[in-house]
Amino acid sequence: MKRSIGAKTVLYPTPVLVVGTYDAQDRPNATTAAWGGICCSKPPCLSVSFRAATMAHSNIMARGAFTVSIPSDGYVREVDYFGLVSGRDADKFEATGLTPVHSAIVDAPYVGEFPLVLECRVLHVHELGLHTQFIGEIVDVKVEGECFDEAGELDAGRVASFFYAPQDGNYYGKAVRIAKAHSVGRDIKDAAE
Amino acid sequence: MKRSIGAKTVLYPTPVLVVGTYDAQDRPNATTAAWGGICCSKPPCLSVSFRAATMAHSNIMARGAFTVSIPSDGYVREVDYFGLVSGRDADKFEATGLTPVHSAIVDAPYVGEFPLVLECRVLHVHELGLHTQFIGEIVDVKVEGECFDEAGELDAGRVASFFYAPQDGNYYGKAVRIAKAHSVGRDIKDAAE
Repeated sequence: MKRSIGAKTVLYPTPVLVVGTYDAQDRPNATTAAWGGICCSKPPCLSVSFRAATMAHSNIMARGAFTVSIPSDGYVREVDYFGLVSGRDADKFEATGLTPVHSAIVDAPYVGEFPLVLECRVLHVHELGLHTQFIGEIVDVKVEGECFDEAGELDAGRVASFFYAPQDGNYYGKAVRIAKAHSVGRDIKDAAE
Repeated sequence: MKRSIGAKTVLYPTPVLVVGTYDAQDRPNATTAAWGGICCSKPPCLSVSFRAATMAHSNIMARGAFTVSIPSDGYVREVDYFGLVSGRDADKFEATGLTPVHSAIVDAPYVGEFPLVLECRVLHVHELGLHTQFIGEIVDVKVEGECFDEAGELDAGRVASFFYAPQDGNYYGKAVRIAKAHSVGRDIKDAAE
């Protein structure tokens, strides 16, 4: 039996996007966003949303670029901290000991220690209400060598990402492969034909 | 050491959104989308992207409404099938035996068996390239009673959602709680102050 909980922003999973930007003094900032995801295949784009009051918002508006670093679950503490504090009040890279790496192709830094990095330049800015949605064209993706399997294929399990659960208020990780996509449902298709 | 894999749509996790719509003959359709997520807190909104060639795209354009049903991992086979076949070629509810439930508040059906349902009306349509991004205002959320814990709080673990891994091509699930959000990184904040 379903129960209404009202008009809430609840969806599982929501990603843990660590968004890297520079401020006007070229200081690197990293913050978290759960409101975002891939939104177009060609051009390859992702979206990420920020409130106008945030430093990430100002930085992206000024520079027209950002990165998204996907952390592995060993960094959950540092990532949570990134979301707790404003870059206006602290040097978050210094506080965590993580490394801001200057992207060679967009005007933004990424987190050197995190396994998966998307470098983006802003294509569109959509004012939606409390949040502004930035559509970034993904101009390159960089992945740690240890995330590829023996056949050279990217293995999401080795990225060891985790997710944020709105309402619930926890991070969840250690997900395991449960089925092959575009395959496990094929018998229903065959039976129906 | 990071390796460039080019400009690809790869992000972990991407959600498994089962999008429900009606066609011009009021036939219910369900299909999958991994390109989407929450995008604004006020008004509460989510985005989902479809290619113009899809039935979901035509249906959402015509009706201005859709639902998102989040499946639990016991339905991975049915969900994969939803993404393998067009609603133009098959009655996907009939083929899977799943139940289209007419939303009482938006002009779209949802999947009765799935634990978490978001009912949306279209606020914005953004042409991004191959995909059109639909911004839906979340007008209500419905959750199965078994997804609440003893204290009456929503427990993401009981929803048992799974995710899709682009490039990797698998579904991942059975994620477990690894840390409390807005909490586990607090010691870094305290130490830096």
